[in-house]
Parts: sequence; C-alpha cells; structure tokens
Amino acid sequence: MAKVGSMEGRDGAAGLVEVLDYVRRHGTSTRSALVEATGLSRMSVAQRLSALLDRELLAEGDLARSTGGRAPRTLRFRGEAGHLLVADLGATSIDVAVADLSGAILAHAAEPADIADGPDVILARAEELFEDCLAEAAPLAGELWGIGIGVPGPVEFESGRPVTPPIMPGWNGYPVRERFAHHRVPVWVDNDANVMALGEYTAGLGRGTENFVYVKIGTGIGAGVIVRGKLHRGAQGCAGDIGHIQVPVAGRDVICRCGNVDCLEALAGGAALRRDAEDAAREGRSTFLRAALDENGSLDASDVAIAAAHGDVTSVELFASAGRHVGGVVAGIVNFFNPSLIVIGGGGARAGDHLLASIRETVYRRSLPLATRNLVIHGAQLGGQEGVIGAAAMVTNELFAPDFLARWLDAGTPVGQAHAARV
Amino acid sequence: MAKVGSMEGRDGAAGLVEVLDYVRRHGTSTRSALVEATGLSRMSVAQRLSALLDRELLAEGDLARSTGGRAPRTLRFRGEAGHLLVADLGATSIDVAVADLSGAILAHAAEPADIADGPDVILARAEELFEDCLAEAAPLAGELWGIGIGVPGPVEFESGRPVTPPIMPGWNGYPVRERFAHHRVPVWVDNDANVMALGEYTAGLGRGTENFVYVKIGTGIGAGVIVRGKLHRGAQGCAGDIGHIQVPVAGRDVICRCGNVDCLEALAGGAALRRDAEDAAREGRSTFLRAALDENGSLDASDVAIAAAHGDVTSVELFASAGRHVGGVVAGIVNFFNPSLIVIGGGGARAGDHLLASIRETVYRRSLPLATRNLVIHGAQLGGQEGVIGAAAMVTNELFAPDFLARWLDAGTPVGQAHAARV
Repeated sequence: MAKVGSMEGRDGAAGLVEVLDYVRRHGTSTRSALVEATGLSRMSVAQRLSALLDRELLAEGDLARSTGGRAPRTLRFRGEAGHLLVADLGATSIDVAVADLSGAILAHAAEPADIADGPDVILARAEELFEDCLAEAAPLAGELWGIGIGVPGPVEFESGRPVTPPIMPGWNGYPVRERFAHHRVPVWVDNDANVMALGEYTAGLGRGTENFVYVKIGTGIGAGVIVRGKLHRGAQGCAGDIGHIQVPVAGRDVICRCGNVDCLEALAGGAALRRDAEDAAREGRSTFLRAALDENGSLDASDVAIAAAHGDVTSVELFASAGRHVGGVVAGIVNFFNPSLIVIGGGGARAGDHLLASIRETVYRRSLPLATRNLVIHGAQLGGQEGVIGAAAMVTNELFAPDFLARWLDAGTPVGQAHAARV
Repeated sequence: MAKVGSMEGRDGAAGLVEVLDYVRRHGTSTRSALVEATGLSRMSVAQRLSALLDRELLAEGDLARSTGGRAPRTLRFRGEAGHLLVADLGATSIDVAVADLSGAILAHAAEPADIADGPDVILARAEELFEDCLAEAAPLAGELWGIGIGVPGPVEFESGRPVTPPIMPGWNGYPVRERFAHHRVPVWVDNDANVMALGEYTAGLGRGTENFVYVKIGTGIGAGVIVRGKLHRGAQGCAGDIGHIQVPVAGRDVICRCGNVDCLEALAGGAALRRDAEDAAREGRSTFLRAALDENGSLDASDVAIAAAHGDVTSVELFASAGRHVGGVVAGIVNFFNPSLIVIGGGGARAGDHLLASIRETVYRRSLPLATRNLVIHGAQLGGQEGVIGAAAMVTNELFAPDFLARWLDAGTPVGQAHAARV
C-alpha cells in the first residue's frame, strides 16, 4: 500500500481526510473530480486514493460517463466497511439504532423509558436493544467502529460524563463511556440537542446551512448550535442550554428545578404543559381536557395536542402561551446569533402546529427585521429520528477527523485495536 | 523569485498564508520553527519564505540562539511594508489612526462628533483626521494597503453599507466603501462592536480566547462574537445586535426607537442613563446630579459616574439598574453560547465599576453554574483604543487571507494596483 509516511508531513493525513471527506459527502466521485475539488495534483490524489482503497474505506465503483476519452472509474465510500451503535436517550424514551459508516440507519428500535431510572437500568436496556438491532441488521459485513450516545442534559464532551443534569437524577458524573468499554471501540457522548442538531445538519433541513440552531422542546428544552458547519459546544460543553434562560415578561415567578424563577423550561417544557393542562382540566376550563384527565389519570403533550386539534380553546392557548415563551427566548438568540435557520424539534414540537405558529409570530415580532429578513423557522424534518441519525454523524465526524484517521492508518492494525488505544 | 505557480496548486497560496501567519503572529521566527509548526518540509518552507522575502513582506532579522550548529537567521514580519487608515466612528466620537501592517498604531486622533450629522460631514472629518495622522506618522516607508471603518450600527459586510442603523440617521445604505475609492485601496466596513471584539482578540483580553463575547455599552448597546478565533457575523451580518433583546422582568414598557418595548438599549443605553439621571435630578432624588444638571444643562454617563464615585446613592443605583438589565441579557447569552470570557467595553463601561459589578452579580445569579464555572467577566483592557486596533486587525485579516494574498502575489504588480482591482 502507499504509505502515509511517503507523503509530506502533515499533508499525509490531512490530504487523506480531504479526499475521504469529499467522497463521503458525495457518495461517489472520480479521480478528475477529486483533483478539481481538492486542488491537489493527480499524483497526490492517486497516492491518497491508493491508501484508502487498500484500507477498504473506498472501493472502485461503476464507470462514470465519458467526457471524451476512456470512461473514468468511479470511487465510492464503503459505508459497509463498518458499523456503529447509536442511542438517543430522552427523558421519557430510548431510541437506538445500528448505522453504517455512511451514517445510514440499518436497524432502529424505540420504546418508552424513564431516564430517572438511572444509568444502570437505562444503559442495560440500551444494550439489549442494541442486540435486537444487530440481529435485525445481520449479516453485517464490517466490524463495530464506534458508539454514540445522546443524553438529555449537559455533558462534558471530553470525558463523556453528564454534568449536573437537572432531569437525569443519578447520572451526574456517570462514566457512560467506560460503561461501553467492553466493546473495545471508542465511545462519544453528547447532549441530545447537540446530537439532534447534527442529525438535521447531516440529513435534514440543516443540510448545507452553515449557521443554524436546533431547538428541542420536550420534557426539557435545549438547543444545538451549528457555527460554520460545526457544532458549537462552548467553553464547558454546555452551549445551547436555553431551558434556563429567563423568559421576558413572564412575571409568573414560577420556580424552576434549577432554583431560579421563570426559566423557559419551567414555563414551556413538557412538565409545565402537563401541569398547566391538568390545572385547566381541574378548574373546569376545558371539558375536553377534563374528560381525558378523568380517563387516564394524567395528561401529556399529546392529550393537549388532540384537544387543540379538536378546537379546544384552552388547549390552543396552552400551546400559544408556550410558543410565546419559547419565541421570546428564540428572538433573543436570533438577535444575538443571526442564524439563517431555526429548526424546532422534540416531542413538544411534534405535538401540533399551534406551538410552531406561536413561536414564529413572537420571533418575527420581537427580533430585528434585518435578522429575520431571510430567517426560516421550521419544524424538524426527520420525524424524531434526528437523534440517532445525529449520534451516528457525531461518531463518523470523530472517526474520520484527521488525527484519529491518521492514527488508524499509521497503526497498520485492525480497526478495533487502533480504536481501543483511545478508549 | 520563487513563483507561486511552481508550487502544487492550492498549496501555493495556502502555504504562503500559513507561513506568513505564523511569522506575523509571533513577530519573528526561524526556518526550523516554521518547519515544526507547519509540518511542511524544509524545501517547502524555503520556497514559501523566498516568495515572501522577495515581496518584502518578510525580512531576515538577527541571528537566533544556536541550538548546536550554526546560529539560525531569524525572519521577521515587515509591518513597515505598508500602512493602513482606520476609523472607529461612535455615536458621539470619531477615533482615527494610522497603523502599520502588523496592526501597530503609529498615530491616533480622537474628537467628539455626532454620528447623526450624516456620512458626508462625518467621513469628511475622518479624512481630515487621517491627513493629520499621516503627517504625524511621517515618514512612512510603505504604501497605503487598506482602509478599515467601524460604525455604530448593523453593516452588510460584503457591500460595506450600513443597514437600517437606528442611531445613524442618514447612513442607511450609504456606500462607505465607495466614499474612500479615491485612495485606490480596498476598504472594509463593519459594525463597531465587531471591530472592538477583534481588537480585544488581537491585542487585549481576548488574545488566544477562541470563544468570547465583547459587549459594548455606549449610546447603543451591541456585541461582537468570536467563535473559534473568528468573528461570527451571522446570516445577515447583524449577529451581536443585543441592544434590542427584550430585558427579562423589566415590565417598564419603555418604548424603544425600534418600535418594541423594553429593549436592552432603551433601558440601559447611554440615552436611557441620561434620561433617568436627568429625571432623578429634576425630581430632587439626587442633589449631586441636580447641581451638575444646573451647571451643564444636561447630564451624561460621566456625570453619573462622578456622582457615584462620590457616594451618590441614586447614581450608584442608576448603574446598578443598568447592570441588572445588561446582566439579564448577558446571562441568556452565557447559557446559549457558553463563552469563557465576556469583555465589557464602550463609554458606559468606562464610566465606573458599579455597572460591571452589577452585570457580574446578575450573570452569576442567572446563568447555569456549569456555564459560569470558568467564566471571566472583565472590563475592556485597551482603554477605548480597541476600535481602531480592531479596525486594523479587520483589514490585515482580510489582506492576508489566502484568496486575497494569492491574487496579489500572482498579479506581480505593485500593491496598490492589485488592490484597486478589488475596490
């Protein structure tokens, strides 16, 4: 094989990543397209391709259309060279999947769960669901390359540990990465809104949008921030934690679990919606919600959504009010960050259009006209799968980063062993 | 000279920029240090250095300390190869300077001015002050390379035109760049808070801080946002426009010039402080302010600062209140963006410590503990010169960007002509 060492210093791994990235992003390519796109010489491209073909990350594909002479051979990224295990742990759900190295989901499983059951219970169940998905996706050609986990709270990305997560009792400082060490592959853990933002950036509405914000409205409220095509994690890894921004003109003095008053989450999160809906039902302000409460003993966002869809004025107003609170905070973000796209996702967002309409109305009223001139505010497009898709994107981003790829190529060892050195 | 064309494609200009950047950042360097820092071969470094020495952007300097064999010759960036004209236009001031290509300020002039006098008056005065500074800095070895202007309002960076700037009547859409076309060098125009953030990043507290926010508190209130070492301008170039974020729990229904209520600027900007101070004086709540008002006919931030320094309780409370409002908005930014540093600058910030103390208290109370764990909130360090220093940094960043530098090196023409093609 062409040895990395035969290329000039840093240019080796960086050049490999550039060539690999281009083929990964486009699915297939040709030598000429690579020469044009990278500005490298034909010789440099050929050397790099040779290394990547030898390591079976690329394969020769079909003949491309001839542009005069002999038809060129295409190159394609071998997503099947390996697979990933990914999980999106929500406050009330577990979503797991097996993905290939291109990020394509090969098998998917989801079920309700309570994150407050703690890491032992939840992660054991995730492992079981991994097994189910692996069985469903079998036979898998490649090895396991990596694991990606999203959790509904702040995470120190370097260590993969949740840090004082308000809605995850028992998880503070839990070594999630070490919990999966027996797989002998690297494990990355991040906040769920970050992971979902990556999902929308990779495969959803955010594709090609260099600066955007994904807002997750569920039990918790959080955001993932993409700046110049990369996730912005911030100094402590807690960028996007908008659930505890104080809502303008709330004045309700609702005490949040963080200890402050009138935090966005305390007024517009899933628990707040449930609380306000049950109050409305008990106080006789909605016969529709009252009936649902009597039947089920409790209410959730989907009950309110159904009521709103049936024209229940109180339920419409509950979403409108939540939307005004979210919109007030998002308006500030729009003024500060001036994104071109805001994607609204999470269980709350899927509950109905009233919430989205109210968010839009508030943002367009409260942000500067220049900042909203071309601003699009849209519901998430991946139907709730942005978490697992994003977790796979997180893992492939890390696996194919220059440093990591260089170490693997230099090691000349099987993937698993090179990876294990990092775990 | 070593021709750029003799290097491989894109590697030419990019490699040149990398070598030039390293020497610019460090002031001086050696061939060995460059080989180590860039990962390029000695031959590649030598080729790139030769091109930069030929074009007189670098010069051979003193002998460095020997590390065994012959003492290596240092290389230094020739800041004196050219000069820049820069201006920081405030709501109530003009600051201009002549800088060299390293960004060092060679001559500086400042005077009060009213931005509302319009672009013809203000820019004509800036030109006169440029002449004064050029005379003061004479003799200048190099040619004029570029012009940089900061203005107190949103700017479309690509065209260099102010866009609906609230406190700049007469400037909307004004072609600032074209106004300086007769200099036959490129002109860059940006919002003043952006420019000040660049100044603090280049030469002040923000040096080496990859993610930070500069908050300017003056007549207007704005912010400059540095992400991964680069200014974040946003989709429409208006990122950082925090003056029109609605203040939490204000509830005062103060109408802002933007048409909304309770915007930060309407409650804590220079005009608001003046208004509140004059109200307090007239209503007999401060004998100190009353005396100052009687003497001068009006009050400004420095009057309130002097009163506060003398223990006038009303004036202390005016700053504390402004600080709570700014702090409330900054707390939201800290939760969303998780910077490691907030620099507070502008005329209001220089007026006294009470404002800064109140901002800090509010942010530490209202932001998540994780986000403030290592957060530093500090007054600007450049004594009000961050505007002109930042404007010079903006120009050198653009001049030495790969595309621009490549065009100049390829053209083989004198600097001015290559530049003029861009104006």
